[in-house]
Amino acid sequence: MKQTISSRAARGEMNSRPDRQAFDFKAYLEEKRSLVDDRLSEILDCSRVDSRLCRAMVHSLMGSGKRLRPVLCISAAEAAGHAGDTVLQASCSLEMIHTYSLIHDDLPAMDDDALRRGRPTCHVEYDEATAILAGDALLTLAFENLTGCAVKPDADAAGLLRVIRIIAQAAGYRGMIEGQMRDIAAEGENLALDPLKEMHSLKTGALIKASVVSGALLVCADEKQVTALAEYAENIGLAFQVTDDILNVNGDPEKMGKASGTDSARGKSTYPALMGPEKAAEYAENLVNNALQAITIFDNKAEPLAALATYIIKRDK
Amino acid sequence: MKQTISSRAARGEMNSRPDRQAFDFKAYLEEKRSLVDDRLSEILDCSRVDSRLCRAMVHSLMGSGKRLRPVLCISAAEAAGHAGDTVLQASCSLEMIHTYSLIHDDLPAMDDDALRRGRPTCHVEYDEATAILAGDALLTLAFENLTGCAVKPDADAAGLLRVIRIIAQAAGYRGMIEGQMRDIAAEGENLALDPLKEMHSLKTGALIKASVVSGALLVCADEKQVTALAEYAENIGLAFQVTDDILNVNGDPEKMGKASGTDSARGKSTYPALMGPEKAAEYAENLVNNALQAITIFDNKAEPLAALATYIIKRDK
Repeated sequence: MKQTISSRAARGEMNSRPDRQAFDFKAYLEEKRSLVDDRLSEILDCSRVDSRLCRAMVHSLMGSGKRLRPVLCISAAEAAGHAGDTVLQASCSLEMIHTYSLIHDDLPAMDDDALRRGRPTCHVEYDEATAILAGDALLTLAFENLTGCAVKPDADAAGLLRVIRIIAQAAGYRGMIEGQMRDIAAEGENLALDPLKEMHSLKTGALIKASVVSGALLVCADEKQVTALAEYAENIGLAFQVTDDILNVNGDPEKMGKASGTDSARGKSTYPALMGPEKAAEYAENLVNNALQAITIFDNKAEPLAALATYIIKRDK
Repeated sequence: MKQTISSRAARGEMNSRPDRQAFDFKAYLEEKRSLVDDRLSEILDCSRVDSRLCRAMVHSLMGSGKRLRPVLCISAAEAAGHAGDTVLQASCSLEMIHTYSLIHDDLPAMDDDALRRGRPTCHVEYDEATAILAGDALLTLAFENLTGCAVKPDADAAGLLRVIRIIAQAAGYRGMIEGQMRDIAAEGENLALDPLKEMHSLKTGALIKASVVSGALLVCADEKQVTALAEYAENIGLAFQVTDDILNVNGDPEKMGKASGTDSARGKSTYPALMGPEKAAEYAENLVNNALQAITIFDNKAEPLAALATYIIKRDK
């Protein structure tokens, strides 16, 4: 049953009712990414604020990102209700937070990466001070932008405060930033499987979960729906990271927009290294199946979420 | 008239009514600082979250800071209404944002300072990666903490969203961070007076103004009160920076908790260098007088604000 949903979702065939067209995941993803890109360009417009800082922010924000977090936010909102303009606007903050974290992680004092999203990293294109400040500014703008979502009629102020709180907690010192601290500390440490999972659940899982949950909360999902979506998110968050490790071993640097083989060179623990490559791939597939199981309560309103889960382990970058 | 208020406030004598005691500014400042310190320790408690990251955040946050921004927030709230627990809680976010900006400004890629608040800077005590992340985490925690203020009965959600927005704008890429960009770019540039003022109004003025205005908004001040307090804040923000430059030339490094003479060594434009030391001191005094004039509408409810304005140019650190 689980595998059937998974493989049907992968082929975009989850909705089998004869009176509706088959779900076209590729077109869906393209449409949402384009909406997010357009909105991000509107929010951060260097023609209005002409500064080196703004250009550095745009350099990192507007590369060829997957926009996974905003799309997850939108798709979760669609599963639980109607994803209006507020959801699109709020989803952009998740991409800003993700981008700021990449800029800072890429710094010489951290991962010291020169390539990201197919472009030179921010500190390579500009300089280190500018990159630190561009990251700071994207993080700050993410929160400013979230407060702006309140003026829309489809979000109330108290609900929006809850969303801001959930996102700040996920991105903060008990979430994403602690994950990055542990990631740095773990270099050359041969982390065992459980600490590795915990590190990833903090570093990438927390913000992915916040993306999904905030989408649901913005459309006033009930507790049962939020719980189901949180479980979905926890599973795909981990599946995403396992797949990232697999791609880091086998991936094509050109498609990924960043170097491959870097984890092993840095002595980082990875799922393929700990479990073997085949078991790691199987583990990712099981996680995706768990995620699909969690969202069965939404019926075909969760088609995009189901397809996204499958996409996460089938992607090549 | 202006000078009379100024000198009386400096002596803590602004309230001349015989039925009330003279205002004791030193005791007031001590009390508020202590309240802020206690609340900051409660919010960021490393005994609950035991991590290197948390300890690095506490290292920078809990030094001997002046707590100027939280105290301004509280005093503005007192001038316009009753400063309850929500105001104290929210004011802590301003100190977190200020501290994060100091941690990042002190980094080797920026000002490369080794001493701050009488202690080794964060990257010296820990390391560069930890300092970057501790700064990120304090900024994020500032917003998380602000959302928590909504549960208190004396603040409504829509008002709190407005406060978060104003603080995020002041701290962001059109405010404090742009100010830091310009400060870095201006090293050795011999900036003229107007660009210097603009840089400072962004780098320090914006957050000081947001501190005062947010205090007022948290107690539902009316537009006239907010405008008066904003004018007060603009003047003291600039006065603070002029005094900072004077102290950088003449100050005692031990009292300041950081090195002196560094601006001149870095070829930074300063008010004493551009105007001469005496004219700079006179300029700071005029700004403080303007600030005092702006808050006359609050009568003796603004005694703490008046005393704070005078303190800013009389301080020795």
